[in-house]
Amino acid sequence: MQTLQVSLDARSYPIHIGRPEANEFGHMLRDAVPKCSKIIIVHDESVARFAARNAMVIAPDSRSIHLVSVASGETSKSVEQLDRLWKTMLSLKADRQSVLVAIGGGVIGDLVGFVASTWNRGVRFVQVPTTLLAMVDSSVGGKTGINLPEAKNVIGAFWQPSLVWVDTASLDSLPDREYRSGLAEVVKYGVILDEAFFRSLEDRASDILGRDDFAVTEIVKRSCELKAQVVAADERETTGLRAILNYGHTFGHAIETLAEYGTYLHGEAISIGMTMAGMLALSLGRWTASDLERQTELLARFGLPTRIAPAIASRFSHAAMMDAMLLDKKTSHGRLHLILPSRIGHVETVVDAPLELIEDAIDACLG
Amino acid sequence: MQTLQVSLDARSYPIHIGRPEANEFGHMLRDAVPKCSKIIIVHDESVARFAARNAMVIAPDSRSIHLVSVASGETSKSVEQLDRLWKTMLSLKADRQSVLVAIGGGVIGDLVGFVASTWNRGVRFVQVPTTLLAMVDSSVGGKTGINLPEAKNVIGAFWQPSLVWVDTASLDSLPDREYRSGLAEVVKYGVILDEAFFRSLEDRASDILGRDDFAVTEIVKRSCELKAQVVAADERETTGLRAILNYGHTFGHAIETLAEYGTYLHGEAISIGMTMAGMLALSLGRWTASDLERQTELLARFGLPTRIAPAIASRFSHAAMMDAMLLDKKTSHGRLHLILPSRIGHVETVVDAPLELIEDAIDACLG
Repeated sequence: MQTLQVSLDARSYPIHIGRPEANEFGHMLRDAVPKCSKIIIVHDESVARFAARNAMVIAPDSRSIHLVSVASGETSKSVEQLDRLWKTMLSLKADRQSVLVAIGGGVIGDLVGFVASTWNRGVRFVQVPTTLLAMVDSSVGGKTGINLPEAKNVIGAFWQPSLVWVDTASLDSLPDREYRSGLAEVVKYGVILDEAFFRSLEDRASDILGRDDFAVTEIVKRSCELKAQVVAADERETTGLRAILNYGHTFGHAIETLAEYGTYLHGEAISIGMTMAGMLALSLGRWTASDLERQTELLARFGLPTRIAPAIASRFSHAAMMDAMLLDKKTSHGRLHLILPSRIGHVETVVDAPLELIEDAIDACLG
Repeated sequence: MQTLQVSLDARSYPIHIGRPEANEFGHMLRDAVPKCSKIIIVHDESVARFAARNAMVIAPDSRSIHLVSVASGETSKSVEQLDRLWKTMLSLKADRQSVLVAIGGGVIGDLVGFVASTWNRGVRFVQVPTTLLAMVDSSVGGKTGINLPEAKNVIGAFWQPSLVWVDTASLDSLPDREYRSGLAEVVKYGVILDEAFFRSLEDRASDILGRDDFAVTEIVKRSCELKAQVVAADERETTGLRAILNYGHTFGHAIETLAEYGTYLHGEAISIGMTMAGMLALSLGRWTASDLERQTELLARFGLPTRIAPAIASRFSHAAMMDAMLLDKKTSHGRLHLILPSRIGHVETVVDAPLELIEDAIDACLG
């Protein structure tokens, strides 16, 4: 097991990563949430067995622990599901000392974290991410929330967990495509912040693809460390520093929208988005062709797309892409703020890049 | 105009109290929320005219300002109303720089504050309390939230306003019974924290009852100052210090429940609750009969009840009162924590007061 501390003053918390011994989770949980009156585990239906196993580890007597299942998929981040969980909390007589445990991917973490932030004006919660994407992305940052039918993540709160428990064994049953999708965010951390980490991803690509336990633990740990540095400097996204985490995401979110949600997994869209951003940086003379090539090659080696599939290319007109990008929450007063690399390990914010160069970068990744 | 600063580190904010000059509110609002993109005023339907007048003062061109009306009464603190306001925010294209303004009593402040805390993971909000109770109670403390049908305030967040604007002119149309109800909390601050303030309430009772502008400004200011001291020492209700604000409330909440919500206004129930707490303190030998008499006389002078009305006394059996009191959120592990005075200006927490003395204190205020 490896441990990493996320430093946020009174809201600091540890992330434990690896394959735990028999009762390790139970012990660490009780350490992280003293005076806990009751534990309510909310899990994705797809990891019911893993959740039940953990429940037994945490509370062998099962009196003070409850399991609540939530349907898989983004549609569970809804007002209806939120209301259902609030009512469940009431029926379980959850109080201020109760602790929520979220077991699942990003959807479960966002939803359960938001319930925790709003129950009795805030109770403690523990995150147990079971997808690679959730391990390297939503483990750090404190963003919680739900969607309205027409707008993602417009409702939510910043609420930090008391503990994040990454049991790499939970990846054993993760479908390959989902695992690879998570790797896109891992590559992102290398490009935006850490050239040495990027090189280690190149060097150890086959171990990583083979889900070698040691390799997985290392990439999760380093990704969380890098994200934690950024978040510590801008916890509530007020200074703009946190925006660098958005590399590839303004293009990526537009791709998710135009391809229709579900066509691409999040990491796949981000992979294409990073390629578009890289192309734009190249044409602006901010980046070298060889750096862009390294990025493209690594993404491809991880089985990630770097171009839009020809079958749906017709949906990606310049106008449609620009509209979708301008709707992205990261724009400000109608001006695109794009994160572009200047070398591997370093990015900068570029405002008002020339429209025709943005369009060229999109075209270069079409079909 | 008098100004008071509530000190909570980065979350500090001013409270302005008095009758403003023509454009004063607009100027102060723009100072308190720089870079505001859009203003959404949510007001109680009963103060629609006052809200519309303020809207004109804030934004004479009316392009960037919107008025949303909410039905009066506790039932508006519901999941349905919350969902409706979230959808309104979306339809108004509210973004991170938008500002919510709550105009109304405690219900509106709690509801709108909670919407502010959850929209885009937190936007700024301004409180314009229009009842005396809201001015002296919910102006300070940062408690926001809604009810579930079976449980009050179980959903919510701590979220501080950017500015509180107390326009004493808004009291002109407040019904007398509601005004008097607010005075119960004012008396409470004197009993728990400030003997000199209590004495000034005795001395100036007729000015206060006559809603003399100067007297009202003074009692609102001093009440907010006293509450702000307590909240600054225990912002999130974690150290127990904040519990002293609960004087009279454990009895009072039980009275509200048993009498059926609506029979007594909040302050009326608290007035009886303070009398019960005072009786108990007396029988425990913690307080003097003359201090209790001063409290009872001042409450009575303000037209507040200090006994349960005979017509409903039969609902207040010992068992029913104890059950309702033990359900109060301020109890811990089934043990009553009562705030009892030791002299005017000072209270202490008493755990496990003898049951028969509690029952005697209840009986002493019956019929």
